[in-house]
Amino acid sequence: MKKFLDQDFLLHNETAKTLYHTYAAKMPIIDFHNHLSAQDIYENTQFNDIAEVWLGGDHYKWRAMRTLGVAEEKVTGDASAKEKFAAWAQSIPYLIGNPLYHWTHLELQRYFGIDTLLNEQSAMEIFTQCNAMLKQETFRVRGLLDMQKVQAMCTTDDPIDDLKFHQLIAEDSSIELQVLPSFRPDKAVNIELSWFNAWVDQLADVVGYQIEQLTDLFKALESRMDFFVSCGCTVADNGIDVFVYTTDVTQTEAETIFLKGRAKIALTPEEIEKYKAYVLLFLGRAYAKRNWVMQLHIGALRNNNTRRLHEIGPDTGYDAIHNAFDIAKLGQFLNDLDAADQLPKTIIYDLNPADNHKVVTLMQCFQDGVTPGKLQFGSGWWFMDQKDGMIDQMRSLAANGVLSQFIGMLTDSRSFLSFPRHEYFRRILCNLLGEYVELGEYPHDLEFLGQVVQNICYYNAKAYFGFDIK
Amino acid sequence: MKKFLDQDFLLHNETAKTLYHTYAAKMPIIDFHNHLSAQDIYENTQFNDIAEVWLGGDHYKWRAMRTLGVAEEKVTGDASAKEKFAAWAQSIPYLIGNPLYHWTHLELQRYFGIDTLLNEQSAMEIFTQCNAMLKQETFRVRGLLDMQKVQAMCTTDDPIDDLKFHQLIAEDSSIELQVLPSFRPDKAVNIELSWFNAWVDQLADVVGYQIEQLTDLFKALESRMDFFVSCGCTVADNGIDVFVYTTDVTQTEAETIFLKGRAKIALTPEEIEKYKAYVLLFLGRAYAKRNWVMQLHIGALRNNNTRRLHEIGPDTGYDAIHNAFDIAKLGQFLNDLDAADQLPKTIIYDLNPADNHKVVTLMQCFQDGVTPGKLQFGSGWWFMDQKDGMIDQMRSLAANGVLSQFIGMLTDSRSFLSFPRHEYFRRILCNLLGEYVELGEYPHDLEFLGQVVQNICYYNAKAYFGFDIK
Amino acid sequence: MKKFLDQDFLLHNETAKTLYHTYAAKMPIIDFHNHLSAQDIYENTQFNDIAEVWLGGDHYKWRAMRTLGVAEEKVTGDASAKEKFAAWAQSIPYLIGNPLYHWTHLELQRYFGIDTLLNEQSAMEIFTQCNAMLKQETFRVRGLLDMQKVQAMCTTDDPIDDLKFHQLIAEDSSIELQVLPSFRPDKAVNIELSWFNAWVDQLADVVGYQIEQLTDLFKALESRMDFFVSCGCTVADNGIDVFVYTTDVTQTEAETIFLKGRAKIALTPEEIEKYKAYVLLFLGRAYAKRNWVMQLHIGALRNNNTRRLHEIGPDTGYDAIHNAFDIAKLGQFLNDLDAADQLPKTIIYDLNPADNHKVVTLMQCFQDGVTPGKLQFGSGWWFMDQKDGMIDQMRSLAANGVLSQFIGMLTDSRSFLSFPRHEYFRRILCNLLGEYVELGEYPHDLEFLGQVVQNICYYNAKAYFGFDIK
Repeated sequence: MKKFLDQDFLLHNETAKTLYHTYAAKMPIIDFHNHLSAQDIYENTQFNDIAEVWLGGDHYKWRAMRTLGVAEEKVTGDASAKEKFAAWAQSIPYLIGNPLYHWTHLELQRYFGIDTLLNEQSAMEIFTQCNAMLKQETFRVRGLLDMQKVQAMCTTDDPIDDLKFHQLIAEDSSIELQVLPSFRPDKAVNIELSWFNAWVDQLADVVGYQIEQLTDLFKALESRMDFFVSCGCTVADNGIDVFVYTTDVTQTEAETIFLKGRAKIALTPEEIEKYKAYVLLFLGRAYAKRNWVMQLHIGALRNNNTRRLHEIGPDTGYDAIHNAFDIAKLGQFLNDLDAADQLPKTIIYDLNPADNHKVVTLMQCFQDGVTPGKLQFGSGWWFMDQKDGMIDQMRSLAANGVLSQFIGMLTDSRSFLSFPRHEYFRRILCNLLGEYVELGEYPHDLEFLGQVVQNICYYNAKAYFGFDIK
Repeated sequence: MKKFLDQDFLLHNETAKTLYHTYAAKMPIIDFHNHLSAQDIYENTQFNDIAEVWLGGDHYKWRAMRTLGVAEEKVTGDASAKEKFAAWAQSIPYLIGNPLYHWTHLELQRYFGIDTLLNEQSAMEIFTQCNAMLKQETFRVRGLLDMQKVQAMCTTDDPIDDLKFHQLIAEDSSIELQVLPSFRPDKAVNIELSWFNAWVDQLADVVGYQIEQLTDLFKALESRMDFFVSCGCTVADNGIDVFVYTTDVTQTEAETIFLKGRAKIALTPEEIEKYKAYVLLFLGRAYAKRNWVMQLHIGALRNNNTRRLHEIGPDTGYDAIHNAFDIAKLGQFLNDLDAADQLPKTIIYDLNPADNHKVVTLMQCFQDGVTPGKLQFGSGWWFMDQKDGMIDQMRSLAANGVLSQFIGMLTDSRSFLSFPRHEYFRRILCNLLGEYVELGEYPHDLEFLGQVVQNICYYNAKAYFGFDIK
Repeated sequence: MKKFLDQDFLLHNETAKTLYHTYAAKMPIIDFHNHLSAQDIYENTQFNDIAEVWLGGDHYKWRAMRTLGVAEEKVTGDASAKEKFAAWAQSIPYLIGNPLYHWTHLELQRYFGIDTLLNEQSAMEIFTQCNAMLKQETFRVRGLLDMQKVQAMCTTDDPIDDLKFHQLIAEDSSIELQVLPSFRPDKAVNIELSWFNAWVDQLADVVGYQIEQLTDLFKALESRMDFFVSCGCTVADNGIDVFVYTTDVTQTEAETIFLKGRAKIALTPEEIEKYKAYVLLFLGRAYAKRNWVMQLHIGALRNNNTRRLHEIGPDTGYDAIHNAFDIAKLGQFLNDLDAADQLPKTIIYDLNPADNHKVVTLMQCFQDGVTPGKLQFGSGWWFMDQKDGMIDQMRSLAANGVLSQFIGMLTDSRSFLSFPRHEYFRRILCNLLGEYVELGEYPHDLEFLGQVVQNICYYNAKAYFGFDIK
């Protein structure tokens, strides 16, 4: 029997152990998509306590606590840090088979050197110990990132963002970490959402001219993309809950729908689809022109609990996996971009694992014999960012694509303590490769496989995004 | 190599063995959903022979026999008990990897103490031996339930049912077994089906007044629910082949559609959806008011073979798994109930395993921090009630929900010999937990895990349904 | 650790080894569906070099090479055989976890006796060695088939095909191999495709009369079926990218739609569905009348990359897995055929693994107690024809159908070197059965299981198709 979370955690064969310890473990981290704050990094924020950093924004933990009957007061409410931490400590032993169990203890080990299991008995000792450490200079934000060898990361930013802190970080020669923005123009796409018009007005303010026509919007987005480029941006991100698309839309139609949207006239589903298709196609081409990577995050069903949305807001643990999406529409979109050789490098993340093989086999239709791994199947995302989800994602990719070209892991996280998830991923990757070898399905060529491991953990992403690491 | 069906059947590591033998095996059974007959229990029916009890209503076996070329005469037809049993005995060896192989031999071992493999050679000896035992007093219905330590069960009952036998059982102090009804109002919901009007008329007879308006129907259903409460009912069950729902329905619309349905005027799909949504919402609120559990069985494609339906009727082995269902509609339904805090405890069973992660992640949006495990992901159902199906269900639940709050197994069965399926489930559960431990993914804390096992096998369900075991 | 591709490749327990080596390995091959050329077989074609036979038509390899950045010139372009082979040899080490890695080395071992791993270093030696062997008489097409003990195969043929080479093969007493046609009438079904009218005109030429009405088309198809029967055909194949069907179509409607299609008037989706339903029902009945097997290949999303389609044509690696299909429509189709007892033996292949359990449970509704295994769930198809895909297909079939009645493997291939995929399948099958045994889920009855293995590998298909092996 294996000890819980020992040095060979998740490594169940000798090849896996060698691949991990000799090749994977030492690689730095490129976290090419997350939701961290550049301001926190620039200001090198210090946390008050472990409850703040662990429970302040982690809706994974909140959902688990609610299921165990923990009152909202101790989840997102007014209870003290100590009470919240105690509630979490009481909850954690019940999370058998849940990634939270692993992440929590990995984070205790890796950042704080604490091997003790978290539970009701150990809660207060761990609380005190972590809090004391968080007071140390090396446990400020940048110290935490250093501990995990984070070299570069991409935050997620609105086109209207001034990227002030990204610029300040870039200008600060004392900060080696590369903190790059991602361009996330969802608000320009989602014409049906209530904040569309206010957002377009804000964008107008930022660019300094009226946005009266769709061409104005496109001009403004282009100018913001150029600004993002000036801040080192090489990647965009698009959150697409339901992938709608159509080729059946003219410029005139799109213009008309835009004007209706601006005039707050209700739109039909067909109009919304036409508008989104037109804007998405524009964006894809604009990304390709700049040699950006286009990320597509497909398939979240958001804000399912209206009562809680009104009480505590979005991104608080009330989202789910949506239905499998229409792969033919994604194919049409990629094809329309490709038709005039305007398809950017693209990473497709699906949230519903029933879409895995569809996504892999479709993306393989657009690999171009020029850019290795031009189309990427994104690592297990959100609810699928756990052992089974990662294995499924990688086995689908290996069987119907080329695993060795994979750009690997990203945290997609809102917590500065979540970087051991790269280690988690790397262990699972090495175990999978080790399994292929030990089952006789691939030769025992450690040197070659070690290189493949390092590529997936680091070099593939570095080349793909064109990062010029400081 | 493991011997077939030995004492460690399905238990592949030491932790699993301890969890099963020390903690799980001794727990009594709460079978909170099945299709057994209260009358058979009250009258303590004696079976004529093993063919009657095994082959009399088991469409799983019938499907397998037909696939092997067994003529319908020996499946559901006029062949003798001996001929039917012989046909089954010849079929069983071919069912490699099928749960029928395991269930059949488990039932022979557990009820009859027979270790011999069933096949053509052993058929007549086993037939004779089982039949002799079935003549014994302890092999009547209640004896069979006792052998398996069944403490409580919920049958499935039409709102118009008089529940006479449930009452007689409750009044009979010699019967310790708790036999409770479930309220299954499908016929009030499925306005498009041919028997709708006749059923509403029957309901009118039962309540003693005309049902002319939809409000009359609701009044009648409420009064039947109250009657069910008086018979100890704490749970409803809704069979929903395709989950349709809409918030876009007014009371007036629903009333009008009801009147059209009563007048046998054909309804559009939109009207059917509106009616069903309106009735389902009423039912959910009525369940919540009574603190009942709402079960939703989603995704069967029924009566696919019209020729056989006419020849031998429904529930004879001609059903299948339907398409993945629209999770957004289920989310809307749960949200509408939750909006005014009228969401009852809810168990969602999906038949299509492609829905598993969708269901788990959606239900987690309605866990309320008050009732632990308020929303439940139902155990592998029907075609998924087998090893792979159970493991998938539990791993989905563990990764994206909280496995330790799971209320566990139910037979959903029409056979008094099917209770070893609880043992089957428990072994698979213990093996899964043992695997987590032995792979180093959870600490080796047998006492705690043993308690979790007992909770999933028994205590969680007991608390969830509020059973007051005699 | 297991050596790569040793004699026990994919066999991970003793039972599996015995089942494979003692029972499976020696069985001849019936390849009941592929895309090979009868002309090549009759003429006993000799290949110029290994690049021609390996890379000349294999879009699996092409996709992988493009992903690794190999220019199209070396994939399907004008590069020399040596350059293409070198590009493939450089690519193959990167295909960890991909079936191409296994197939490539299996083919080197089985046909050429080469144990060396293919890579950049070994490329030229292997190229030279294979090419020299391909010059030998025994390495012509029929020799390659003999090496793999291929006894019978079914090619895929258009109704207008004259089957000249099938006839010549049948008449040639020196050829023991049975090469039978399959009737693939997709062009009669797909009224919406551009080549519909030209094809109907060609068919008219072949039958020698005008096709003015739909009844003429049906008459022509019937006469071609009879011609195919005269050439030994016992099986039809239907490629159905999206399964559409409706019972709501009259003969008059179908006739009218046919006339519109012939007049090149644009059809609505409803009209296309009605036409296809009507023709498919006709075909199914016509197959049943001739006791043919009906194959349905469901769920490809084809020609996704328009640019490449125009440059290098269809079937060049630009297809994908489509959305899960509507199982209710398939159920309606099978039911309409069954209603008048006109349902032929049917093999359903789905491309999307999310459909597996749906297909198995639906087909079980039409098993008739007369023909064992009348409805078949086709072996892992195309993108699913790999280890994980095969295991999923067989476990679904075992759990919800009857694995022992399975007719097993087919290559679906365009390459004369692809027959070791039968071995690949057989090893996976034996390992699965061995696992059931060694885990104690089935008794250790090697004789019986050996017979089941031989049935799945050979005898089931022989009986199912009624092949009268020469």
